[in-house]
Order: sequence, then C-alpha cells, then structure tokens
Amino acid sequence: MKSYRKELWVETKRRREFLNITPQVQACLLESGIREGLLLCNAMHITASVFINDDEQGLHRDFENFLERIAPEKPHDQYFHNGSEDNADAHIKRSVMGREVMVAITEGKLDFGPWEQIFYGEFDGRRKKRILVKIIGE
Amino acid sequence: MKSYRKELWVETKRRREFLNITPQVQACLLESGIREGLLLCNAMHITASVFINDDEQGLHRDFENFLERIAPEKPHDQYFHNGSEDNADAHIKRSVMGREVMVAITEGKLDFGPWEQIFYGEFDGRRKKRILVKIIGE
Amino acid sequence: MKSYRKELWVETKRRREFLNITPQVQACLLESGIREGLLLCNAMHITASVFINDDEQGLHRDFENFLERIAPEKPHDQYFHNGSEDNADAHIKRSVMGREVMVAITEGKLDFGPWEQIFYGEFDGRRKKRILVKIIGE
Repeated sequence: MKSYRKELWVETKRRREFLNITPQVQACLLESGIREGLLLCNAMHITASVFINDDEQGLHRDFENFLERIAPEKPHDQYFHNGSEDNADAHIKRSVMGREVMVAITEGKLDFGPWEQIFYGEFDGRRKKRILVKIIGE
Repeated sequence: MKSYRKELWVETKRRREFLNITPQVQACLLESGIREGLLLCNAMHITASVFINDDEQGLHRDFENFLERIAPEKPHDQYFHNGSEDNADAHIKRSVMGREVMVAITEGKLDFGPWEQIFYGEFDGRRKKRILVKIIGE
Repeated sequence: MKSYRKELWVETKRRREFLNITPQVQACLLESGIREGLLLCNAMHITASVFINDDEQGLHRDFENFLERIAPEKPHDQYFHNGSEDNADAHIKRSVMGREVMVAITEGKLDFGPWEQIFYGEFDGRRKKRILVKIIGE
C-alpha cells in the first residue's frame, strides 16, 4: 500500500469565495504515482468546505445566495458563537456544503463524471488556510 | 490490496426521485470478493446525490418538501445559473443531501446499522445517469 | 493492509445533543496500530450525524437554532413520516449535518487542522446508539 500527503495553501481576497482546486489535486495525484485507490481532500479549517460541483459562475452566485438566505452572516449578534468571533455563519455554511470529498482513483486518474470539479469553499477568508490531500492505494 | 470499480446506470421517470440502490451495491461487493476495506459510492453527476437513510415513503416525501422549501425549483429565473439551464435548484439540493457515502466493509458485508440503506437521490432526472462504486481492501 | 473496527456506544439525556468523541476515536487509532491510512467514523443510526467542527458551546446552540429553523421538530404532524413516528425532523437534520467523516491518518495521528474535533450529533436521543470506527492502512 502506498500513501501520499500534501497540504495546499490558499488565501482568498473576499470573505466568501469558491476556488476550483481540481488542477492542484490532479498534480498531487500525478506526484503520488498511485494508480488505484482512494483520495481524500478536506478543508483543514472549520469555516471552509471542499465539495464537488460545476465550474459555472452563475451557479456559484446561486450557492452564495442560498447559503446567505438559510444562514445569513448579519446581524452578527444573532449567533451565540459571535461574542468575540463574527463567523458563526461560516461554520454553518461549511456544514451545509460539507468538509471533504472522497474521489476514486482509477488508472492513475480522478475517476469523475462529465462535469465534476473539486472546489474549495471559503466562508471566512482573507487569511491563509490549508487543504489536505491524502491518497492511499497502489 | 484489491481494487474494484463498477458503474451503475439509472434513469428516473420523474425529475426528482429517490431510488434504493442497496441491492446493486451489495452485488458489487459480492462480485469484488473484498472482505475488509472501504467502499465509496458516489453520484457521477452534479445534480444527483448518494446518501444513506431510511427506506420509508413518507420520509421521502418529507425530504422532497424540505428541499423544495429551502431551494425551490420554480420560478426558474430566480437563479443566475438558469440562463440556458433550468436545474440550479438540483445542484443546490444535491449539495445539501451530499454527493457520496463511504461504507465500511467487514467480513464481506456492508457494515451497517439496523436501518441504513443507500439511496440515489435524483434532482434533475428523465435522462441516463451513472453512479460509481469503488471498493478497496483485501 | 491492516484493518480495524470498533463500535462506540452513546446515550444522550436530551433528544438533541452534540458530543465530542475525538478522544474515543483517538483511542481507537492508537489501539489499531495503524500509522498511515484512512479512518471512517459514521453514525450507525439514521437520525444521528458524525461531523467535524469546533468545540464551542455557543456554536452548538447556533447549530441547534439553525437546524430547528430549517427543519423544526414540531408540530409533529407536518411530516408524512410521523404517522407512528415523531422523528422525521431528526432524519432531515442528520442529512444536513452529514452521516460520516473521513480522516487522514498520518504518522499514527488524526491528521487535523488547528480546531478540528469530531462530534456525534444526536437528533433523536434518549436511547442507546452506536458509532462505527473503521480504519484501513498500515
């Protein structure tokens, strides 16, 4: 069994942003040399997500609007968590979108359907954050 | 380490539908010959889910009502994604329900609690779609 | 390839409660002797979650309020599932928060970012329930 680990670093300019990290994850897979196995990609921070969906700007605006409607950022004092913090909404948004994805590795490739792309969803950005890529297989 | 891969094909009659795919996933496991390991089952399309819950028709109607309440299909023009498309709600619904499940494989079986069943959740159906089953172990 | 399996038992006093199970999961990892691999931790019941977030009481109250707002427990008869049952809301809440987490195992440790902690989210408690820990690796 082979095992591979890498941290990807990101820093968004805005508080909330979606970044397509598929090329970086593919580069990890290539570097690992693993051809059959499973790949885990997770946010290492609890106000961010890793999820799979479509790379379409309109859809990303729809995600933003949806998440703001069900768990709005403001007013900050609507949340118990926001005594010294102001990011309770980011913890909730990340929970809805998910922390991690598992991807099958087949013949050295991310085993994806036609439109699947991996996104980092930042909900409390403007600081350095990390994403973990772990691959096990052969 | 052994590795197994199979695509399951589905086509629902309605736009939104929940299908119990546990028997097909169990058949994959049997075919794989793997007795200890991990099984990944994921939708290969970004308007569909794979999730684990109860096989109870009333509950499935509750899921439908819940998802329609938080991310309604219509009016289509409430979503930026719906310029040439009409399925933004399906992308959101799938994000809430999740893309994939991981199941422990123990002594050749899906290592499940008493009521766990695997469902394919279709949110933009009436066309052929695929589900991926990947198993690694021994 | 090594494989490890353990069931953790829990019983909450209230219908809804969040329990930090990180110490128990770490004990499983130590017992397994696995140093490189993947760990699956999932609720074995379909009205409960396992998720990763912050161990902060205010935030947990915010999660409770958020989930009650989007999928309220009462009135029970708003749900089709609640003929003989009264826990449809618990099935929905668990779907939003997720059934399982996957954690990378690196150098014998849960490969976590600074604040990541594993929680069991109970949404229909006051009875004995199980959590599965499955680890594969070397």
